[in-house]
Amino acid sequence: MSHTKTINAYAVYEAGGEFKPFQYNVSELQANEVEIDVLHCGICHSDMSMAENEWGMSQYPLVAGHEVIGKIAAKGTDVKNMAVGTLVGLGWHSGYCGYCNSCKTGDQNLCPTAQGTIIAHHGGFAEKVRAQASSVVAIPEGIDPASAGPLLCAGITVFNPIVQFGIKSTDKVAVIGIGGLGHLALQFLNAWGCEVTAFTTSESKCQKAQQLGAHKTLNSRDETEIEAAANSFDFIISTVNVKLDWNLYLSTLKPKGRLHFVGATTDPLDLSVFPMLMAQRSVSASPVGSPATIESMLDFARLHNIKPQVESFSMSKINDAFAHLKSGNARFRIVLSNE
Amino acid sequence: MSHTKTINAYAVYEAGGEFKPFQYNVSELQANEVEIDVLHCGICHSDMSMAENEWGMSQYPLVAGHEVIGKIAAKGTDVKNMAVGTLVGLGWHSGYCGYCNSCKTGDQNLCPTAQGTIIAHHGGFAEKVRAQASSVVAIPEGIDPASAGPLLCAGITVFNPIVQFGIKSTDKVAVIGIGGLGHLALQFLNAWGCEVTAFTTSESKCQKAQQLGAHKTLNSRDETEIEAAANSFDFIISTVNVKLDWNLYLSTLKPKGRLHFVGATTDPLDLSVFPMLMAQRSVSASPVGSPATIESMLDFARLHNIKPQVESFSMSKINDAFAHLKSGNARFRIVLSNE
Repeated sequence: MSHTKTINAYAVYEAGGEFKPFQYNVSELQANEVEIDVLHCGICHSDMSMAENEWGMSQYPLVAGHEVIGKIAAKGTDVKNMAVGTLVGLGWHSGYCGYCNSCKTGDQNLCPTAQGTIIAHHGGFAEKVRAQASSVVAIPEGIDPASAGPLLCAGITVFNPIVQFGIKSTDKVAVIGIGGLGHLALQFLNAWGCEVTAFTTSESKCQKAQQLGAHKTLNSRDETEIEAAANSFDFIISTVNVKLDWNLYLSTLKPKGRLHFVGATTDPLDLSVFPMLMAQRSVSASPVGSPATIESMLDFARLHNIKPQVESFSMSKINDAFAHLKSGNARFRIVLSNE
Repeated sequence: MSHTKTINAYAVYEAGGEFKPFQYNVSELQANEVEIDVLHCGICHSDMSMAENEWGMSQYPLVAGHEVIGKIAAKGTDVKNMAVGTLVGLGWHSGYCGYCNSCKTGDQNLCPTAQGTIIAHHGGFAEKVRAQASSVVAIPEGIDPASAGPLLCAGITVFNPIVQFGIKSTDKVAVIGIGGLGHLALQFLNAWGCEVTAFTTSESKCQKAQQLGAHKTLNSRDETEIEAAANSFDFIISTVNVKLDWNLYLSTLKPKGRLHFVGATTDPLDLSVFPMLMAQRSVSASPVGSPATIESMLDFARLHNIKPQVESFSMSKINDAFAHLKSGNARFRIVLSNE
């Protein structure tokens, strides 16, 4: 009785390989699933990491893509909260266990057995993608679908800690790294009401950072400039995945300040306890956010006209798009669109 | 017109030297100061660190001692909130600037120019000690003066983070190191309502930990036992100043858990970002607490009959007391008493 159909996608067939057309078969939707017609899908650095098996957990053929904007094409029998045709978004997670403590307390993004959209699951570089309805959010009126994809991963990754750690509008905050994540962090924190400083290296990024909402900029390669900023910030969010002198950045935090990582550096942090202890500072890290926080972010983005700055490619030009990402010149995020 | 008098104390005259009788002259009290007749004064590891100039900031002759219980002997003209004869306590700080943001917001313990009781100031191993009235707290009825001294530094150091980070009574918590600080942390956290685990090494300390309020014990040298405790704790407080496998301890935290340091290890923490990021974990550290939090701690200790377990020495036996401290056999804190 099972009704099988075929989904057209782009897959990498081996670590570091090119994307090539790929078809896979699916049977009937589960009762709690939806099928999404992909309109747009952002490219995240973690798509590249997965395509290249950097984390050792890739399964090939691998269909990456987890910043999906699309329309509900079909839904399982238990899905009551969205109609066919609804404009929706899908991010890093395409399902949650639903019964662990994190799920029960609204922290589904911390569910230890959450389903990754591109981990042992076919993602959004495709005509269609499937997901548990619980991981899919409606895109509100007033959000531009063509540029919204990156909100679903880059956006929520920087928005979530602002919520989680109760950043106040009167806080002085800083963003390390003005790229795919950082350019959204600047916009969110500016709209939040904070005085925002951008740590960046290049003159051109300084100007861009100011346009995006930074009130001040500091050169992240100039130790003297950073030392002079001692005791300045309540909250620093680091979006980079390179090793910096973290104790130096720690010294720029005010008493009770927090240095927060959303970029996963592989080098250990080698933090000194004394500067943390003397001023009761914290260090932390976090991944994406829960569906409710994604909804809250989308609503906030709509109100404040916060948009990812994207460069668009046709889905069929996926290899060109990845080459552009690797060049380091993407400003600031790439989105693939189906025709 | 200045009226000079002499205070009898015990001082170390050079790094690592013995304590010897020492007299110093004082003139009239400042308007905001009090003079305290020292009844009892606990010995803290940091007294030893200062006596031995471990931190390179000791000035000799050095009068250590910053866990003072005594009676107000005299007070400056502006001191309205305590009468001569009031039983009071004095801890790590003997004064605050009063005008920095930390002072204004009730975090006087984070004041960057706070006066240390034993830093360029004569402390409590003496007949008398002076301090700004703002740094002195009244000892409530029902607190035993002979054993209360260690609450003023060891006690507040472990109590403060419980308050600062909003530890909930339903939290699962753990204490690393069952010594001067840890034996108080166990009592506070048990009375707070938490399920308390003690990480410790020796069989004898396990039993002691259970008597002090630990519901469970884990061997801090047994990696397998610690690995089996993955995702168990909301809050871990480390009171040790040795290097442990902090990433292993990090793995025992639940999502959103916190590893907090009150022991100042000099080795960097070399924390991996990934286990912090995947479960939104935090790492932090803090020093002592504000006068208001010290008052809150004393009230909580009174209600729950929380007492430092102390060994008493006469003040004149100060060198014997330090030798006992160095032996590592003090259970759990030493208090010197004036006759």
